[in-house]
Amino acid sequence: MRHFVEELEQLKTKLLEMGSLVESSIQRSILAVTQKDRSAAAEVFRNEVRINAIELEVDDFAVKLLALQQPMATDLRLIVAALKINTDLERMGDLAENIARRALALMDGPPIKPMIDIPHIAGLVQSMVRKALDAFVMRDADLARSVLASDDAVDSLRTACYHELVSFMEKDPHNIQEALALLTITRNLERIADHSTNIAEDVMFLVKGVDVRHHAEIRG
Amino acid sequence: MRHFVEELEQLKTKLLEMGSLVESSIQRSILAVTQKDRSAAAEVFRNEVRINAIELEVDDFAVKLLALQQPMATDLRLIVAALKINTDLERMGDLAENIARRALALMDGPPIKPMIDIPHIAGLVQSMVRKALDAFVMRDADLARSVLASDDAVDSLRTACYHELVSFMEKDPHNIQEALALLTITRNLERIADHSTNIAEDVMFLVKGVDVRHHAEIRG
Repeated sequence: MRHFVEELEQLKTKLLEMGSLVESSIQRSILAVTQKDRSAAAEVFRNEVRINAIELEVDDFAVKLLALQQPMATDLRLIVAALKINTDLERMGDLAENIARRALALMDGPPIKPMIDIPHIAGLVQSMVRKALDAFVMRDADLARSVLASDDAVDSLRTACYHELVSFMEKDPHNIQEALALLTITRNLERIADHSTNIAEDVMFLVKGVDVRHHAEIRG
Repeated sequence: MRHFVEELEQLKTKLLEMGSLVESSIQRSILAVTQKDRSAAAEVFRNEVRINAIELEVDDFAVKLLALQQPMATDLRLIVAALKINTDLERMGDLAENIARRALALMDGPPIKPMIDIPHIAGLVQSMVRKALDAFVMRDADLARSVLASDDAVDSLRTACYHELVSFMEKDPHNIQEALALLTITRNLERIADHSTNIAEDVMFLVKGVDVRHHAEIRG
């Protein structure tokens, strides 16, 4: 049993290593956009290889623990949550990679319009990711719940950004390509926020054994 | 043991019910776009409620089976695959709902430009979804592999569509809002294709016990 406790810790450690890499990728991908930092984009691509490798390790490890340890109750919920969080983290890494690729496409153009509030959305999204992972480590349902609340803020920022970008395009068709790239970046950030929400929901399931998905009334 | 076999069948049946609803939602959402069919969009919203309910049922059922039956080998892989496929199907339902919402926004405008090849992409994506679900039912690794191959076709169609829509916008800024809505629709279709790919990968893991994710060389 001692052994199993250590194995569960190992599973969590692997997931958190992945979480750190994903956080670093998100941060670097935004630097690549806002600072036109080519080496930051390169680091995202390097992280991606490691993130994909850990995804396979976590799944493999979780399935082995299910098979060999036949866990019950909380331990079982932890392993199921780990399987789900694993998938979300890997997709978040993919989305950061998408942002870094767009950043490279924008690299040679003029400086990004300051009116486009990408750093603001990015800051909010990064804090959601951080809180979701902290909530997982500390099994903190209240912190997880606070992530669900932030999701609406990201959505409304994204909508405001969308309208700004549309008028930017309508003003001058030469802006269209750049505006579309920025639109894609904000959409990728919004999807990263959605995955943080998924993780927060998994943490609430893990801590309370309660499934909060599709029950907006409990989320508030 | 007889009982457990029946329970696994029940789990599969629930997933396939969800799969049918998701397929119907995708089809209806595209009808809503191309035929401006308001009742088709309404059906997508109705399906969504049921899809969300089944998602919770499947997760709950899968966790119970893991806890009470302590399955080994193939049965364990089936339950883990079911947990993952469940998540993908639910997201596909969400994406169909996004498409239906865009369709409603376009409903009062002029007819959609025929040059935008949404029905073509949609047809490809629907066949990927069908094949991925059939591969799951028949545990057919070759069929699953064929889904992975189609993903590239969808990507290149989407890219062609993107360039068409950009020149459509550049030609006349009045087209921007409509073109952005169509762009979002094709992006949602592409994401549905990605989820079909995820399901196909899970089927290959289920059938062969081999993880094909992140190994492009095996996918060909």
